[in-house]
Amino acid sequence: MLIKIAVINGPNLNLLGEREKGFYGCFTYDELTTDILNFAKNNNIEVSVFQSNIEGEIINEIHRLRKWADGIVINAAGYTHTSVAIRDALIAFGKPVVEVHISNVYKRENFRHKSYISDIAEGVIAGLGKYSYIYAIDFLNNLLKK
Amino acid sequence: MLIKIAVINGPNLNLLGEREKGFYGCFTYDELTTDILNFAKNNNIEVSVFQSNIEGEIINEIHRLRKWADGIVINAAGYTHTSVAIRDALIAFGKPVVEVHISNVYKRENFRHKSYISDIAEGVIAGLGKYSYIYAIDFLNNLLKK
Amino acid sequence: MLIKIAVINGPNLNLLGEREKGFYGCFTYDELTTDILNFAKNNNIEVSVFQSNIEGEIINEIHRLRKWADGIVINAAGYTHTSVAIRDALIAFGKPVVEVHISNVYKRENFRHKSYISDIAEGVIAGLGKYSYIYAIDFLNNLLKK
Amino acid sequence: MLIKIAVINGPNLNLLGEREKGFYGCFTYDELTTDILNFAKNNNIEVSVFQSNIEGEIINEIHRLRKWADGIVINAAGYTHTSVAIRDALIAFGKPVVEVHISNVYKRENFRHKSYISDIAEGVIAGLGKYSYIYAIDFLNNLLKK
Amino acid sequence: MLIKIAVINGPNLNLLGEREKGFYGCFTYDELTTDILNFAKNNNIEVSVFQSNIEGEIINEIHRLRKWADGIVINAAGYTHTSVAIRDALIAFGKPVVEVHISNVYKRENFRHKSYISDIAEGVIAGLGKYSYIYAIDFLNNLLKK
Amino acid sequence: MLIKIAVINGPNLNLLGEREKGFYGCFTYDELTTDILNFAKNNNIEVSVFQSNIEGEIINEIHRLRKWADGIVINAAGYTHTSVAIRDALIAFGKPVVEVHISNVYKRENFRHKSYISDIAEGVIAGLGKYSYIYAIDFLNNLLKK
Amino acid sequence: MLIKIAVINGPNLNLLGEREKGFYGCFTYDELTTDILNFAKNNNIEVSVFQSNIEGEIINEIHRLRKWADGIVINAAGYTHTSVAIRDALIAFGKPVVEVHISNVYKRENFRHKSYISDIAEGVIAGLGKYSYIYAIDFLNNLLKK
Amino acid sequence: MLIKIAVINGPNLNLLGEREKGFYGCFTYDELTTDILNFAKNNNIEVSVFQSNIEGEIINEIHRLRKWADGIVINAAGYTHTSVAIRDALIAFGKPVVEVHISNVYKRENFRHKSYISDIAEGVIAGLGKYSYIYAIDFLNNLLKK
Amino acid sequence: MLIKIAVINGPNLNLLGEREKGFYGCFTYDELTTDILNFAKNNNIEVSVFQSNIEGEIINEIHRLRKWADGIVINAAGYTHTSVAIRDALIAFGKPVVEVHISNVYKRENFRHKSYISDIAEGVIAGLGKYSYIYAIDFLNNLLKK
Amino acid sequence: MLIKIAVINGPNLNLLGEREKGFYGCFTYDELTTDILNFAKNNNIEVSVFQSNIEGEIINEIHRLRKWADGIVINAAGYTHTSVAIRDALIAFGKPVVEVHISNVYKRENFRHKSYISDIAEGVIAGLGKYSYIYAIDFLNNLLKK
Amino acid sequence: MLIKIAVINGPNLNLLGEREKGFYGCFTYDELTTDILNFAKNNNIEVSVFQSNIEGEIINEIHRLRKWADGIVINAAGYTHTSVAIRDALIAFGKPVVEVHISNVYKRENFRHKSYISDIAEGVIAGLGKYSYIYAIDFLNNLLKK
Amino acid sequence: MLIKIAVINGPNLNLLGEREKGFYGCFTYDELTTDILNFAKNNNIEVSVFQSNIEGEIINEIHRLRKWADGIVINAAGYTHTSVAIRDALIAFGKPVVEVHISNVYKRENFRHKSYISDIAEGVIAGLGKYSYIYAIDFLNNLLKK
Repeated sequence: MLIKIAVINGPNLNLLGEREKGFYGCFTYDELTTDILNFAKNNNIEVSVFQSNIEGEIINEIHRLRKWADGIVINAAGYTHTSVAIRDALIAFGKPVVEVHISNVYKRENFRHKSYISDIAEGVIAGLGKYSYIYAIDFLNNLLKK
Repeated sequence: MLIKIAVINGPNLNLLGEREKGFYGCFTYDELTTDILNFAKNNNIEVSVFQSNIEGEIINEIHRLRKWADGIVINAAGYTHTSVAIRDALIAFGKPVVEVHISNVYKRENFRHKSYISDIAEGVIAGLGKYSYIYAIDFLNNLLKK
Repeated sequence: MLIKIAVINGPNLNLLGEREKGFYGCFTYDELTTDILNFAKNNNIEVSVFQSNIEGEIINEIHRLRKWADGIVINAAGYTHTSVAIRDALIAFGKPVVEVHISNVYKRENFRHKSYISDIAEGVIAGLGKYSYIYAIDFLNNLLKK
Repeated sequence: MLIKIAVINGPNLNLLGEREKGFYGCFTYDELTTDILNFAKNNNIEVSVFQSNIEGEIINEIHRLRKWADGIVINAAGYTHTSVAIRDALIAFGKPVVEVHISNVYKRENFRHKSYISDIAEGVIAGLGKYSYIYAIDFLNNLLKK
Repeated sequence: MLIKIAVINGPNLNLLGEREKGFYGCFTYDELTTDILNFAKNNNIEVSVFQSNIEGEIINEIHRLRKWADGIVINAAGYTHTSVAIRDALIAFGKPVVEVHISNVYKRENFRHKSYISDIAEGVIAGLGKYSYIYAIDFLNNLLKK
Repeated sequence: MLIKIAVINGPNLNLLGEREKGFYGCFTYDELTTDILNFAKNNNIEVSVFQSNIEGEIINEIHRLRKWADGIVINAAGYTHTSVAIRDALIAFGKPVVEVHISNVYKRENFRHKSYISDIAEGVIAGLGKYSYIYAIDFLNNLLKK
Repeated sequence: MLIKIAVINGPNLNLLGEREKGFYGCFTYDELTTDILNFAKNNNIEVSVFQSNIEGEIINEIHRLRKWADGIVINAAGYTHTSVAIRDALIAFGKPVVEVHISNVYKRENFRHKSYISDIAEGVIAGLGKYSYIYAIDFLNNLLKK
Repeated sequence: MLIKIAVINGPNLNLLGEREKGFYGCFTYDELTTDILNFAKNNNIEVSVFQSNIEGEIINEIHRLRKWADGIVINAAGYTHTSVAIRDALIAFGKPVVEVHISNVYKRENFRHKSYISDIAEGVIAGLGKYSYIYAIDFLNNLLKK
Repeated sequence: MLIKIAVINGPNLNLLGEREKGFYGCFTYDELTTDILNFAKNNNIEVSVFQSNIEGEIINEIHRLRKWADGIVINAAGYTHTSVAIRDALIAFGKPVVEVHISNVYKRENFRHKSYISDIAEGVIAGLGKYSYIYAIDFLNNLLKK
Repeated sequence: MLIKIAVINGPNLNLLGEREKGFYGCFTYDELTTDILNFAKNNNIEVSVFQSNIEGEIINEIHRLRKWADGIVINAAGYTHTSVAIRDALIAFGKPVVEVHISNVYKRENFRHKSYISDIAEGVIAGLGKYSYIYAIDFLNNLLKK
Repeated sequence: MLIKIAVINGPNLNLLGEREKGFYGCFTYDELTTDILNFAKNNNIEVSVFQSNIEGEIINEIHRLRKWADGIVINAAGYTHTSVAIRDALIAFGKPVVEVHISNVYKRENFRHKSYISDIAEGVIAGLGKYSYIYAIDFLNNLLKK
Repeated sequence: MLIKIAVINGPNLNLLGEREKGFYGCFTYDELTTDILNFAKNNNIEVSVFQSNIEGEIINEIHRLRKWADGIVINAAGYTHTSVAIRDALIAFGKPVVEVHISNVYKRENFRHKSYISDIAEGVIAGLGKYSYIYAIDFLNNLLKK
């Protein structure tokens, strides 16, 4: 049976490739999604990809995933640093989570160094662009197959 | 005329009984609602119960309650610690509010010790499980009946 | 067999009704005691009520209660914010404790927001006047009867 | 060609004139909107006015404005102090922004002194009531016409 | 009768147009003064303009203005962040004050984010160049005419 | 009718003249008391002098003084910096209080710079040795005679 | 030979009696000066009184006093909290200094709780109105006569 | 002549062996006392042992010991972290003091890492159970015999 | 030509598999090295692996690598949180660096949340066990091949 | 079988008796070693003594001791306050550790009050000179013999 | 053409040699000036020396120097730690500045460790007495001659 | 007899001229050494120059210098900000020390503003490139010749 991994993207990530290329590289959100889906297909992993700018919708999605997903890869973007509610939803999810960031948040403003997700995740990948997602999916797949 | 009290529940509380039983006990959200409604009925109080995972919907609800409710019992869950906007909505409500928590937030992570609601509420009840709600409703009823 | 609950009141509470009515309401300490005893009687709970202005006497009383009480309701007043020693006595007590405050301490000076008792108590009730005590006793009775 | 300026209002501003008149004056939200539109008309500026209580909807609106607006006047209200996500949306907007507040936020609670928007805006106007908006629109119009 | 508004400029503003054009634009101090006086004349406002590099002279001027001015527009420049004494003089002035800055101080060093004037002023305008002054004068004129 | 002023001395002051003469000078506690009583007699003031090393006894004394004294001069010594309970007792006293210290506490360890009494007292005198008491009594006498 | 004591008053104190009567009482600066001179005359003390709004002029005066005065009574007003330079001048003076304040600074804004003078003075008197000066002069006279 | 050493135990230590055995081991207070007295006897040291839950009584005891003891071994328990008054009493004692703790306070809550006694003691021993006392007595005996 | 990547391991990592298996998993240092070398071989990457417990030797190694390596993968272990000197060596290296950790440092003590390397690295991978290294090497290989 | 205890001394301790006698007493490092060895011999304890100024060498030694020692007495001197790496080595050691200091570190600079070792040690002894070592060895011997 | 360097001395430096010789050595201000002028003459440098106790006069002087000086050596004394306005004047000067102190400010009170000048200067020299000035002039001369 | 001065250089300084030329200029470590030795020779000073990347080797060198050197010029580079152990070695050295930095550390990251050496050195020179060393040697020579 295939491992099921959900990718969740937070606010403004729908604009990828259109903003702050210095931080985020020049691939678009569609290209990111395509790359993720291709990687999953090539590695026999079931993947869903979700994006919302609304904190509560992300929470709703995490609640729905309790039934479907074996693990979550989350880039909560701006909500990483401010949302206790998403943290609580991920705790309630109860299965492995990996936190990812496209840019290296530790190089940016101080308020981006603090995450409400890091200490409840399996691990954190920051600054590796698209690869942050690919490695996180690969890691969860390996972890969950055991 | 009966006192009208609105109960507002914030993010993730819909999952009660399904997550972190150490903190929240093993009653479900439906059981909580039923107990609240029964208590209200037995004590001749009109009660509405609302839950949302979306910060802005909670604000919208508080705005709507300006017309209907005499008092609010609010468990803003994760938004307790981060939402200036809910605080502002409660100030605009202009009638008595009691802040409640099912678990004892003071036993948990530091960021849960800070509340944007406590200093604008009549009072705070934390850690008494379902009773946090029951007592808050009872208190508001007594206060408002005067 | 009846549940035995001890109520402990800290410094200056003997002056209730004579000071700062804005914060504490206008009932006297005797009225508070009478209300507590009546509630206990009506609900088949054994209750003792104790007050002292001396930190060490409160500790002594908590030590004595190790033999008698099933639970403690404590309003340590000014010592709430400064007494590690009372905290240690309550830990040594080893049975459930509820922290209460007549006024909403979170509305007052910053130093009243910190409590050495909250994180070792079952829960906290603040700002509900006399009801803070009544609900705490009721809660402990329900908890201990189980 | 006319300059196009979008006015964005955050949570609770829909209640203007109904709450905290000490801080916000006694004009209603409709009166504010009318005054803004009149000023724009008299000065040959195209203006849109938007209000939402939902953080993510404000982000969605800012995304939409990337196509339409030359500049944004934003009163993010409670989200000013807590939303990294709105900050990120405004950075992605990439055109001039002015932050406005009806009341003088520096006279109020400490948490209102910190803004996630100020350091990415052209400037800040606080405490001038309706005029905060009028001057911000006038300024952007002058800036963008150059 | 005309409204009388005093404009006070603090240290180094006499060098406008000669330093840090990135922050302050390229108009000179004389051009700023001329623009202010023209605006006042066109709007039937009496305006005085004062500049000093000496903290105590600014205090002396504020004392003198107690007799003459109906309101003060102050850009205390470097003293904004360090002078309790100017704050005290403005409190003693007892009539409306608007704090202005040519540059957006919130974009600059941390020590410029703190102001001893903001919380005793009607409002604050920062980052709008010359317009900071013009809008402040216009606002005070409207406020005082009422 | 004579003004009645109570002098309260906190922990370790009974050892005056026997310890840390660099800070406290070389007069004994008895000499201090005598000087205070003589000053009172010569100035037609009724004075009581009390000392205790026990925080709660100081509180009890303040409670008793609610009936007798028109004002209190308090040197709470070590309890100045740690006792919310004495602060609360003085608030409950409800009549003017002056805080005194024999040594200049601002010259000593950082923890002595914070006082729980200063902001609820009429004023503070520190570092003037015996004169701290004499001037405080004189001041209260003048204040209360009005 | 008579003891010579200099009284130094900092910024805005020339306005005494005209501003913030809640804090400073309703005597004028001239009345304060007269009372100080009368007290000095009656007690055989030579006193000079100086006031300036300019930090550097206060320093110059302290330098001049090195030749004339045996002690200084200083109310540095707003400069108390910000001036390292006045502190350094007082250290260079090398003879006893008493810091005084008319109002109780510990009751006011946090930034008024910090003084650059307190730890280099003999003592501090705050909140006793005119008496703050009188007692300081009396204390220095007694101290220096020894 | 024998060295005289006083052992002072603070609040809750009378309950040793009855509480928190994880921290304090399973010996009782009587066994601790017996071991101390036996050690003293075997090593020709005069030892007194005192315990009180009342801060002020501990101060009184320290005052009495000024006449009798050559050194003090103090485990002030909860008062270690909060009592300036006990610190002042120990300074007034003027002879060597060793601070001891049965448990390793540095492994516990942050507020137990701060001691008002450590920097005025000869040394500190924490976490060695009964041996903390034995070694402290032995050390003082060796130090004082010199 | 093959990409050359150096792996640097800091203090105590030589003990892998022998300590704290909860944090570090149960593979040994030799197994980690073998896995890294195998991955490199299979992917046509030249890899060197270095470990030292001595801060300065790690610096020396980084200096030597300036000639040989195209990129560095560094797990500085305990020195991550304390070594400005290693940071400076990595800056001097001048080519891409990825910071890795076997365990999720954000789940552990606060002092492990701060890194002197994160903000000068391309990115950070924490908590993915051996995969932290594998992904970092893969990422650098992809980055450098471009 | 004899208990084996390793004593580890950190940087600069080789200079004992040659520096800062006020803090460290006047015994030399050789005398300290001799006293330790004599005490061990007299009490049937096997002891090794090691000193290094190089952080990494201390770590190497701790690694080596995993095979030989039953417990460690460590005076990490300056590295106590800065070395996460030594902390990690001691955790990996996995057997009891006692932290010792010759001088009372709590009397000295603030940065010496923080230790990376205290909370992972059995206990701490500071300020007792040579005895700090002797008591630590004695304690470990007693603890390990059980 | 000769390099022109201005030396600016802040408050209280006119008293050199008359105060705090422990910190400042025993040369007078005149001797310092003479030594500076001699050094300049011997090294073919044009030097001006200025001293004022008035913050604003120092700013005025810096403004004047924009026309004359190639570089500034500034010992702003007490204003170093408090004056944003002098900082701004030095930025407006726009040519190289060296900050000097006669005493080692890092050995003194904490508030002297912070400088508003250091981060905008070429460099800082502290604690070298007269040589602080000589070396600063020599450095600027070498720097500017290039 | 000639004065003997030791120059100690910390980690990464061996790479001078090869890294971060913006901060450190473009001279190499050999050129720096040559300039220092030439200056010493021309001024009749004996100088030794030492560099190590290993903290403990620097300590060992300082220990060795106790026999040879009259003063030390130290650029501890990255260890400046983190090494209590080097501080302790310099204290044990017991003769004058000057701290130098090639770049102006106050212009760089916050963690470079703190030095464990500054407050135990005679003085500090930062930002003057090679001259930082030359002036430090010259100063020590003058100081020690006296």
